[in-house]
Amino acid sequence: MILAKVIGTVVATRKDETLEGTKLMIVRRVDTEGKYIEPEAVAVDYVGCGIGEFVLCATGSSVRVEESKKGKTIDMAVIGIIDSVDKAGA
Amino acid sequence: MILAKVIGTVVATRKDETLEGTKLMIVRRVDTEGKYIEPEAVAVDYVGCGIGEFVLCATGSSVRVEESKKGKTIDMAVIGIIDSVDKAGA
Amino acid sequence: MILAKVIGTVVATRKDETLEGTKLMIVRRVDTEGKYIEPEAVAVDYVGCGIGEFVLCATGSSVRVEESKKGKTIDMAVIGIIDSVDKAGA
Amino acid sequence: MILAKVIGTVVATRKDETLEGTKLMIVRRVDTEGKYIEPEAVAVDYVGCGIGEFVLCATGSSVRVEESKKGKTIDMAVIGIIDSVDKAGA
Amino acid sequence: MILAKVIGTVVATRKDETLEGTKLMIVRRVDTEGKYIEPEAVAVDYVGCGIGEFVLCATGSSVRVEESKKGKTIDMAVIGIIDSVDKAGA
Repeated sequence: MILAKVIGTVVATRKDETLEGTKLMIVRRVDTEGKYIEPEAVAVDYVGCGIGEFVLCATGSSVRVEESKKGKTIDMAVIGIIDSVDKAGA
Repeated sequence: MILAKVIGTVVATRKDETLEGTKLMIVRRVDTEGKYIEPEAVAVDYVGCGIGEFVLCATGSSVRVEESKKGKTIDMAVIGIIDSVDKAGA
Repeated sequence: MILAKVIGTVVATRKDETLEGTKLMIVRRVDTEGKYIEPEAVAVDYVGCGIGEFVLCATGSSVRVEESKKGKTIDMAVIGIIDSVDKAGA
Repeated sequence: MILAKVIGTVVATRKDETLEGTKLMIVRRVDTEGKYIEPEAVAVDYVGCGIGEFVLCATGSSVRVEESKKGKTIDMAVIGIIDSVDKAGA
Repeated sequence: MILAKVIGTVVATRKDETLEGTKLMIVRRVDTEGKYIEPEAVAVDYVGCGIGEFVLCATGSSVRVEESKKGKTIDMAVIGIIDSVDKAGA
C-alpha cells in the first residue's frame, strides 16, 4: 500500500456503470514527511475521507476482494485514514 | 485510476481475436493541470470518448471484471469522461 | 496496452514447460513517433509478428484470459501488429 | 519480491474492515548493500518483523493466495526476515 | 517478461510457510547487451539457474498458474535460462 494525501475530487457523469455511486478522489502519493513523490492519481473512497487528509491507498486486484466490490472497474482505493506514523526506532 | 488525454487512435488489422470490434485509443497520462506526465499508451474505449477529451483510465485486471469483458486481452481502458476536477480545498 | 517495436528473438532451451512451443520476442516500448521509451522486454508472440515491426503489447493477467493461455507462465505478449496511428485531431 | 528495511509503523483507526488486526509496517526498498532505492510504502506484517530489520516483501495478488488472506484488501506484505545475502559468485 | 542476471542468493529462515523449500535468487534486470537497468530483486528459481547466468524472469500472477505454484506467496520467478539473443534483423 502507499501513503497519500487527498487533494480533490473528480466528476465524470459519463463513466463505467460499475462506478455509479462511488466518490472519485484525487490523491497524490507522499513520503512519511508528507512530501509529494508521485503525480496525481484517482482512487475510489472506501472509508469516507476528506480533502487534505493523509490516507492509506491500495491498488490492483486487492481493491476488489470484498463481495460488494468484486464486479467493479476499480484499480485504486482509499482504504484507511492515517492517525499517525511512527518512525522512532528506525 | 489515472487522468489522461485522448490523443489519437490505433489501427491493427492483425490482432488478438478478442480485440475484434474494440476502439483502440492512444491516451497519455496527465496531471490535474492537464500536463503530460507519462508517454503514450493504448486503451480500449469503454465509454465513447473522442480525441482531445480528458478521461479516466483504469489498468490491469480491473478492466475485465464485467461479464462482457472477462475473456478479452485488455489491460487498459477508458472508463470515464471527465466533467470537472475540484482541488479547491487542497 | 503499449506500442512497441520487435527487435529480436530469445532462445532458452531450459525453460518453464508451459513456454514450450512459444516464440519469445525481444520488444522495446516506443512512443507514437517510434522513439524508444523503455528498455527491452520479452513478449510471447500471439499474432505472428516479425523483427522490425511495430506492434501492440499487453501485460499482466490480460495475456492469460484465453483458454489456450490460462495455464501458461506468460506476463507479456504481442497481441497486434500496427497498421497506422492517427493523431490528426489531437 | 524485493528487499526492504522496516522503518516504522502506521496507525489508521478508520480503515477497511478486512485490515482489522493487521500490523501496518512502513518499509523502504533497498539494494543488496542496504541502500534505499525507492520511497516508503506500507506492508502488512506476515512474519513478526521489527523496526530496523531487513526483510523480504511481496506485492500484488501474491499476498492473498493463502486461505486466511483471500478476502483482505492487502497489496503488499512482509513475507520473510533476511538472515543473509550471498553475492560471492557474481 | 524481462532479461536478468543472477547475482546471488538470499537466506531467510523466518518466512512465509509457502516459500519453504524454494531457492530465493537475487536477480538484476539487464538489457540485451547485459547492462544492468534496474536494482536487485528477488525471484524464486523455477529452472535450476546458477549465479552469473543470464535468465528470463516473469512477474505477477503469471508465476502462480501451475498447480504446484497456486498457493505460494511468490510474485517473481526465474522461468528460463538464456542460450542466445538474436537482434540481427533489428
